Amino acid sequence: MADEIVSHTSLSPIGFLRRTAEVYPDKVAVVDGDRRWTYREFAERVRRAAGALRAAGVRPGDRVAYLCPNVPALLEAHFAVPLAGAVLVAINIRLSPREIAYILDHSGAKVLVADTELAAPLAPLRAARRALATVIHVRETAAPDPFAGEEYESVIARAAPADLHEMPAEERALLSINYTSGTTGSPKGVMYTHRGAYLNALGLCLEVGLGFDATYLWTLPMFHCNGWCFPWAVTAVGGTHLCLRKVEAPVVFDMIEEHAVSHLCAAPTVLIGLAQDPRAAALRLSRPLTIATGGAPPAPQVIRNVEAFGARLVHLYGLTETYGPHTFCERQPRWDGESEEGRARLKARQGVAGITALDVRVVDEQMRDVPRDGETLGEIVMRGNNVMAGYYDDPGATASAFRGGWFHSGDIAVMHPDGYIEIRDRKKDVIISGGENISTVEVEQVLYQHPAVMEVAVVGVPDEKWGEVPKAFVTLKPGAAASPEQIIDFCRERIAHFKCPKAIAFGELPKTSTGKIQKFVLREREWQGREKKVN
Amino acid sequence: MADEIVSHTSLSPIGFLRRTAEVYPDKVAVVDGDRRWTYREFAERVRRAAGALRAAGVRPGDRVAYLCPNVPALLEAHFAVPLAGAVLVAINIRLSPREIAYILDHSGAKVLVADTELAAPLAPLRAARRALATVIHVRETAAPDPFAGEEYESVIARAAPADLHEMPAEERALLSINYTSGTTGSPKGVMYTHRGAYLNALGLCLEVGLGFDATYLWTLPMFHCNGWCFPWAVTAVGGTHLCLRKVEAPVVFDMIEEHAVSHLCAAPTVLIGLAQDPRAAALRLSRPLTIATGGAPPAPQVIRNVEAFGARLVHLYGLTETYGPHTFCERQPRWDGESEEGRARLKARQGVAGITALDVRVVDEQMRDVPRDGETLGEIVMRGNNVMAGYYDDPGATASAFRGGWFHSGDIAVMHPDGYIEIRDRKKDVIISGGENISTVEVEQVLYQHPAVMEVAVVGVPDEKWGEVPKAFVTLKPGAAASPEQIIDFCRERIAHFKCPKAIAFGELPKTSTGKIQKFVLREREWQGREKKVN
Repeated sequence: MADEIVSHTSLSPIGFLRRTAEVYPDKVAVVDGDRRWTYREFAERVRRAAGALRAAGVRPGDRVAYLCPNVPALLEAHFAVPLAGAVLVAINIRLSPREIAYILDHSGAKVLVADTELAAPLAPLRAARRALATVIHVRETAAPDPFAGEEYESVIARAAPADLHEMPAEERALLSINYTSGTTGSPKGVMYTHRGAYLNALGLCLEVGLGFDATYLWTLPMFHCNGWCFPWAVTAVGGTHLCLRKVEAPVVFDMIEEHAVSHLCAAPTVLIGLAQDPRAAALRLSRPLTIATGGAPPAPQVIRNVEAFGARLVHLYGLTETYGPHTFCERQPRWDGESEEGRARLKARQGVAGITALDVRVVDEQMRDVPRDGETLGEIVMRGNNVMAGYYDDPGATASAFRGGWFHSGDIAVMHPDGYIEIRDRKKDVIISGGENISTVEVEQVLYQHPAVMEVAVVGVPDEKWGEVPKAFVTLKPGAAASPEQIIDFCRERIAHFKCPKAIAFGELPKTSTGKIQKFVLREREWQGREKKVN
Repeated sequence: MADEIVSHTSLSPIGFLRRTAEVYPDKVAVVDGDRRWTYREFAERVRRAAGALRAAGVRPGDRVAYLCPNVPALLEAHFAVPLAGAVLVAINIRLSPREIAYILDHSGAKVLVADTELAAPLAPLRAARRALATVIHVRETAAPDPFAGEEYESVIARAAPADLHEMPAEERALLSINYTSGTTGSPKGVMYTHRGAYLNALGLCLEVGLGFDATYLWTLPMFHCNGWCFPWAVTAVGGTHLCLRKVEAPVVFDMIEEHAVSHLCAAPTVLIGLAQDPRAAALRLSRPLTIATGGAPPAPQVIRNVEAFGARLVHLYGLTETYGPHTFCERQPRWDGESEEGRARLKARQGVAGITALDVRVVDEQMRDVPRDGETLGEIVMRGNNVMAGYYDDPGATASAFRGGWFHSGDIAVMHPDGYIEIRDRKKDVIISGGENISTVEVEQVLYQHPAVMEVAVVGVPDEKWGEVPKAFVTLKPGAAASPEQIIDFCRERIAHFKCPKAIAFGELPKTSTGKIQKFVLREREWQGREKKVN
């Protein structure tokens, strides 16, 4: 039908690159060290990468895995793999070889593009990966190629460029699979579609204020929820991507100043690290800097610290299953009248559904909305165009996550009277002490107010009388000192005594590759040899 | 299927209001004279209006017509009518009773909501409109109700509010029909879908920079392409709508200053009127003002005049058939190096496809792209999500407009080397003089440079030797003087002699209700009694 053709174009992020390369061919698309590519050049590299994948035998629907830090090849993959009609599997580079092998097998990836610095431990595993036909290596460092593979740059140099007009006929076609770093059981493959990525990217542009002149610093791993869809969003507006192999505070501050960075994303724990760096106080911003944070609830103190060095903070919340950001803590005009502390507390809430996300609720076990009282705990559930299409090859897990027609986040939250949600805990982190629920996040937020505390994690530990009680693991600020008793007293002055930690341990906190604190590691250590707390 | 429900929400502008009313219930949504409604109240009025339509017997798919200036009832209609599952037909208020009757009959509207000031001439026509069951009147002025109908405010006051969660199951459902003010033949009903309006509205937000704090002045008629989708776009970001019954320069300037307007839209001819007003020079902007213009190519001089009073101009181009804006003259960094005149000339081009529009071409009769030489004429064709679903109940006209799988605009343009299109003429306005094509727009742009010229239209008039030759109809600036000879000489110094007008006539120009100059009126006058030029 004529009007079908004329009035309907599949929503796909490929279209963003096509348009931007046409409209802004001479704008700088990518900066990586001394290398710079305009959008014309970036599009050409993407087209050649897609052509190279096809030449390597990749057919529509095939999976292509990448094991890379935030280098240009992985940014290009976000367009090149779908342009080849294939499905991008960007693997977390901090995973163990065994976990990587699992993901390669489960996804059935036909091609792997791996950074030479990361690839060595995989060499012994390769032979057993039967689906894996080709390994291409990305050599950005002195690390040699452990495989007898070809190098990415030479592969794309001789490839026939694909045509950016080759959009998927069906916008709900699979675009990528993002494996969750599940703390229990095997990783699950979260499926993203072209439509979902397109809409979430557009919504992001509006929510964080990405415009034509955006300069985006890649502090968030691209392997994490496809970089919260920022590869597509920044490209949609014709902004500049600044690649960053490794996040180190001095380098981040250098780049912010040198390139006049307008936007970056980071988990709260990364922001804590930045705020602690001596450079933070001396930072000179030549233009407004927006920092989007999420992945864990930021304590109000973290928000104040970031604002202290002049950045505007956008607090967002989501999961791998929601293409990253689903809610945003939208600013309200009436907050201007609040104290600095009051505002920080309001901004620490996870907020409301984004423009293109639309639907989020906090519900009880019977899927009834909890009252908007800021007190009653319930589970956050979502649905809409930026909820995943399901778990790859796992109908059981999909059905379980989607029970009742909504995606179940596993996050426990309250709904405030103004419709803002606030996370109280991961479902499995809630402490049940003498029959009372204790939100570990609430306890942590009190501990963050202590002047000596830099970072903290609270978990439940075994207790003969109460079943379990809170214990705090604390990293002190450099040079600061505090005794366990002082910290416990500090808490008891501020919250109910039963919520206060009964013990304090000092030291480094275990973290995931994306900077999330791994409470389960702390918990497992405490519960070893005991009857395991049910999770 | 569970994942169908969870991962797919129909794209519909209804969702924008639902979200904004939840997120910003206390923000001012609408200002109309002394009246102010927050988003909570606006949503409530919309819900009641939808309920009232249902109570009046409106069923899904039924058409509901509005004959109103830019008053709250018509703004509410953009949400209330689709919320009732029905189709909005916003009628151009400058049409004759005969034309209005045609639209009521052709659309088969079941309900008409009419402003009492406009409704009187319709009273004798009502009885013959068999489909029209109900007329509701909007009484904003002293004008009495000519029908024995009910008043809008009392109708919605007692209606049962509909639920904003009632989104269409199918996003390609019909949302509105906008009748073109066709200069020949009967008006055609351009069909908009929920999906198209949603995407175009989101794209607009990015293109013109609408954010949370937008204050939008309604200088563009809402009956014109549904106000270029701004009823939905402004609501999506939670901005404030300033209603305006009538566009008068002093009132516009008052409102810009009083309400710190951030955005308005207007045809070039309206901007000419604003720039000529004595208030323009004294305008004090307390915040940046963005003016989006389109509907006719603005001469570079118009762009300079608007920028002279401190506004940022966004030049866009589209048609009723493309939900209004389809292309935007996106700013390029390299233009900063141009002279003021050079920049104005670059900005007078119609530009490139918008972020959500994606596809636009300039093609010859065989649908081949014209060379990117800035010279070769071709027709602008478009396709994609913001191209109409077709003409209502007119498969013949739809097939003709969509021939070759693209929508044919009827606009003649060139493609510049940088991929920017520039309109040379409406297909029917091109003058063929002695076998040479003359772009009337090109001639007009030269005439606009003359210091005495305020507004101008060039059309072809009969000529014994050349078949036709250009004639210019000129409105001089107040107090300015120029002779026909002076103006013709001014042209001959600047463009090829065969393109220069052979005659000049001074006086007011005939215009459509949206401020477009009606060249066909001038042409018909000149060709009366002669063999009509083929169009």
